[in-house]
Amino acid sequence: MNSEASYADWIAVDWGTSRVRAWAMKNDVPIAEAHSDQGMGTLAKDAFESALLALIDPWLGVRQTKVVACGMVGARQGWAEAAYSDVPCTPVSENHTRPPVKDTRIDVHILPGLCQRKPADVMRGEETQIAGYLAKYPDFDGVICLPGTHTKWAQVSAGEVVSFRTFMTGEMFALLSKSSVLRHSLTKGWDEETFLQAVSDGLSRPEAMASRFFSIRAESLLSALDGASATARLSGWLLGAELAAARAYWLGQRVALIGNATLSKHYATALGAQGVATETADATKVTLAGLFAAYEHIKEQVS
Amino acid sequence: MNSEASYADWIAVDWGTSRVRAWAMKNDVPIAEAHSDQGMGTLAKDAFESALLALIDPWLGVRQTKVVACGMVGARQGWAEAAYSDVPCTPVSENHTRPPVKDTRIDVHILPGLCQRKPADVMRGEETQIAGYLAKYPDFDGVICLPGTHTKWAQVSAGEVVSFRTFMTGEMFALLSKSSVLRHSLTKGWDEETFLQAVSDGLSRPEAMASRFFSIRAESLLSALDGASATARLSGWLLGAELAAARAYWLGQRVALIGNATLSKHYATALGAQGVATETADATKVTLAGLFAAYEHIKEQVS
Repeated sequence: MNSEASYADWIAVDWGTSRVRAWAMKNDVPIAEAHSDQGMGTLAKDAFESALLALIDPWLGVRQTKVVACGMVGARQGWAEAAYSDVPCTPVSENHTRPPVKDTRIDVHILPGLCQRKPADVMRGEETQIAGYLAKYPDFDGVICLPGTHTKWAQVSAGEVVSFRTFMTGEMFALLSKSSVLRHSLTKGWDEETFLQAVSDGLSRPEAMASRFFSIRAESLLSALDGASATARLSGWLLGAELAAARAYWLGQRVALIGNATLSKHYATALGAQGVATETADATKVTLAGLFAAYEHIKEQVS
Repeated sequence: MNSEASYADWIAVDWGTSRVRAWAMKNDVPIAEAHSDQGMGTLAKDAFESALLALIDPWLGVRQTKVVACGMVGARQGWAEAAYSDVPCTPVSENHTRPPVKDTRIDVHILPGLCQRKPADVMRGEETQIAGYLAKYPDFDGVICLPGTHTKWAQVSAGEVVSFRTFMTGEMFALLSKSSVLRHSLTKGWDEETFLQAVSDGLSRPEAMASRFFSIRAESLLSALDGASATARLSGWLLGAELAAARAYWLGQRVALIGNATLSKHYATALGAQGVATETADATKVTLAGLFAAYEHIKEQVS
């Protein structure tokens, strides 16, 4: 194999808080991938360039290579702040930030996140996934839900993000199941019927949420509630409460799900039980499509 | 001082998950106090006796001394399981458990907690505080709220606990403020006006809770929300949601608050804003009064 063949046209980077992934790209096709745990949260400002080079060095040739990055790398405490774009706006804009670099082989562009003034909200990274989804379905008009640690619900119309809302459901599930008293009662299994019942309970009486959590502990002490049911119940209650608060986003809407496969499946099941049909997209594919859309903008600006 | 003077008539012990406190008692008056971090959660079954003796040894004379203990020490994973009493029942009963001990100078009695079958709920330790409060106010008819990591609301009538409900509000506040993404936005201060507004928001629209949390992070990024306001807001939302779900317990009721002074004050302020007058009792005092009531029962049984 000719080593020339692995040189990248450009490099795509998804740089989150706890992890960074990079792809060597030929046009819109990834030809190599590398990742590390050097997420934004682990790095001082002057450590980003070397963390990046450690991943992409083998892909760099003599010609300068454009690197297009999205995610928390553009946060205030990241490599260089990429100021938010205010919604309503297109998910990918020209407001990218170019951090100073020492290695002349790379030209780094960090994409901005989106913000909403009222109710106050922000995203960094998901806007690139939305852009990727819209690159594939330019006429999409509806809601994109991005399940994750901080799930985002975004209203999309005419190629723009109109409004969005973030739910900490994933982080709350992780905290309650791993760090609270409920950790003694939960195991790794799953019970789909219990989950759907809990979604329904959470959705129909979200105001009772605060009184529900401890009953998991009490039932496991008093009547040996099994750990798989407990896990499905906590997850269902939290998701039901999210769906209650996000009702305006999904009721009577076309909903696209972008995210981790297992989590997206739970959202699809829960929404399906409410009569909402969903379509799903692979998170990595739409991230790369969004970064490619941004790369094409950048190329045009330069040429 | 004659060292005889420090010998105890009996010994009171409040043994929680993370901490143990013991008092040398003359009748109902504490004459010495000792504590350690050897909570139930830190000890194997065979380590409880020595952990207790390390605290109380100086108070033991030639005569055998009764030790009356409440709290998580009686949990299944504690020293010896003290089976729950089912509500409705008096908060202190005769169903105490006597773990085997090697040191013949002590005779240990562990008090049982209370349980409720539907909705499933349990308490260990708070029932002793309720007993102490009732020892002081035998005709109390109303609601006792015990704010803490796991706040309990108990309906009390004719000397019995009729029903109760546990809220994980304190633990959720601790997890969200110390371990979630919100930790970057919260500081130690407090803003009473923000707190009261947040209680009102949480109480009037508890179903929106899931969508609120992340706005604290977003506002601190977008409009430099100060950390003290952020802390008061998170606390107020959580307490407001608890009050919404616990409405049947306090609406039109006489409410007594037993717990940590700062936390009880927040509950008193929040309930006061809803037109509910509260009385407060010192947690340590009612714990000792409850243990004393149990000690008197035990003495009678023996004699």
